[in-house]
Amino acid sequence: MAPRAVVLLSGGLDSATCMYLAREHGFEVEAISFNYQQRHSVELTAAQRLAATCGANHTIIDVNLRAIGASALTSDIAVPKGGTHLQGEAVIPSTYVPVRNLVFLSLAYALAEAKDCSAIFTGVNAIDYSGYPDCRPDFIASFAQTAALASKSGREGRAPEILTPLIAMTKSDIATEALRLAVPIHLTWSCYDPQTAGDMLKPCEQCDACLLRAQGFAALALQLSKEVIFGSPVKVA
Amino acid sequence: MAPRAVVLLSGGLDSATCMYLAREHGFEVEAISFNYQQRHSVELTAAQRLAATCGANHTIIDVNLRAIGASALTSDIAVPKGGTHLQGEAVIPSTYVPVRNLVFLSLAYALAEAKDCSAIFTGVNAIDYSGYPDCRPDFIASFAQTAALASKSGREGRAPEILTPLIAMTKSDIATEALRLAVPIHLTWSCYDPQTAGDMLKPCEQCDACLLRAQGFAALALQLSKEVIFGSPVKVA
Repeated sequence: MAPRAVVLLSGGLDSATCMYLAREHGFEVEAISFNYQQRHSVELTAAQRLAATCGANHTIIDVNLRAIGASALTSDIAVPKGGTHLQGEAVIPSTYVPVRNLVFLSLAYALAEAKDCSAIFTGVNAIDYSGYPDCRPDFIASFAQTAALASKSGREGRAPEILTPLIAMTKSDIATEALRLAVPIHLTWSCYDPQTAGDMLKPCEQCDACLLRAQGFAALALQLSKEVIFGSPVKVA
Repeated sequence: MAPRAVVLLSGGLDSATCMYLAREHGFEVEAISFNYQQRHSVELTAAQRLAATCGANHTIIDVNLRAIGASALTSDIAVPKGGTHLQGEAVIPSTYVPVRNLVFLSLAYALAEAKDCSAIFTGVNAIDYSGYPDCRPDFIASFAQTAALASKSGREGRAPEILTPLIAMTKSDIATEALRLAVPIHLTWSCYDPQTAGDMLKPCEQCDACLLRAQGFAALALQLSKEVIFGSPVKVA
């Protein structure tokens, strides 16, 4: 039987690439996504479509981070535009959701334990990213220790491994990997601030997530469609 | 302004005692509870009543652990009866919910960050407990490090402290504290397996949680009502 891995699938370019990498490494994929009452919940539609293209099981967990708030992604605070990610890790932007990856990795670990998975893949990235503290290698290493102590599997010496294959890649490295792996890139969704156009939602092309993604593809100097560069418009649910 | 603390409030004897201890230490209490689709969701009613008696703000977070399953508390697996907790920490019982405290502490940390709290109180206990790995001191210490790395507050040197005042107490120590602090003990709910009696739910008096609680009060050799020993019946919602 193939080994199994939980993959955190946000529906964005990075997590989709991570899922296809897990499959290339021979894992049967248990994808997990989170309905955290995020402003850009269209990413869950993207995640469902992507999981299906990869033949993965897909679990969506409801976890209401809007009840906590304090982020532009889970409250009515405006999403920053025009390149705040260029300030580097000295400034944590208002799109930071308090310890979001700690919550999400904890839930992924729970699923890994319940489904007897030997690995957890997460597409966190510490190079071309938005300065979030919970995307950095020291956090991931510390989390692995803590989760092993928290769990039956860890106390019994069978803790799933936490793999971060994208952590040291640039956005253009990730774009290159996505093309190599034939990820259906046009189905991925990155935008933090979807814009309504008739009965469609389309990427804003101006938030940090849109700009980082576009810069990653621009660096490849290829002729690519707008659907690859920013993601395709999606029908309003 | 009084310092503020998040208190994890399950509605049980331990967490209620912990909340009253936090108040005694001068903290304004932000109570947090979790609707995780648990079998014994009556505990949320208890938590609401207890928070009100303490004048605490109360946030209930929906997080669907039933979508993960693999526990007698979040699936149709039978709740064990008759003292499996007496086996000690060598055996982790079927009421173990995969890394539940890791998930709950992560969400509590998020709330502490959003509400500018300087402390988080949790009533975990490593003496008279059911063998859960995520109730032990090594886990708590490791969690504090990981959460500080995951968070804006931690990276900025303002990580809330994680306090576990009950961790080394016996159940009778906790019962003694609850009586000293005038916790409304009869309003707490401990049972894992509520029994229906007409339009009321009442404690089963046989699961590990009921037996541990009763033993704690029995050790005090006081004349106590059944409502104190096991908790009061609650009207079905």
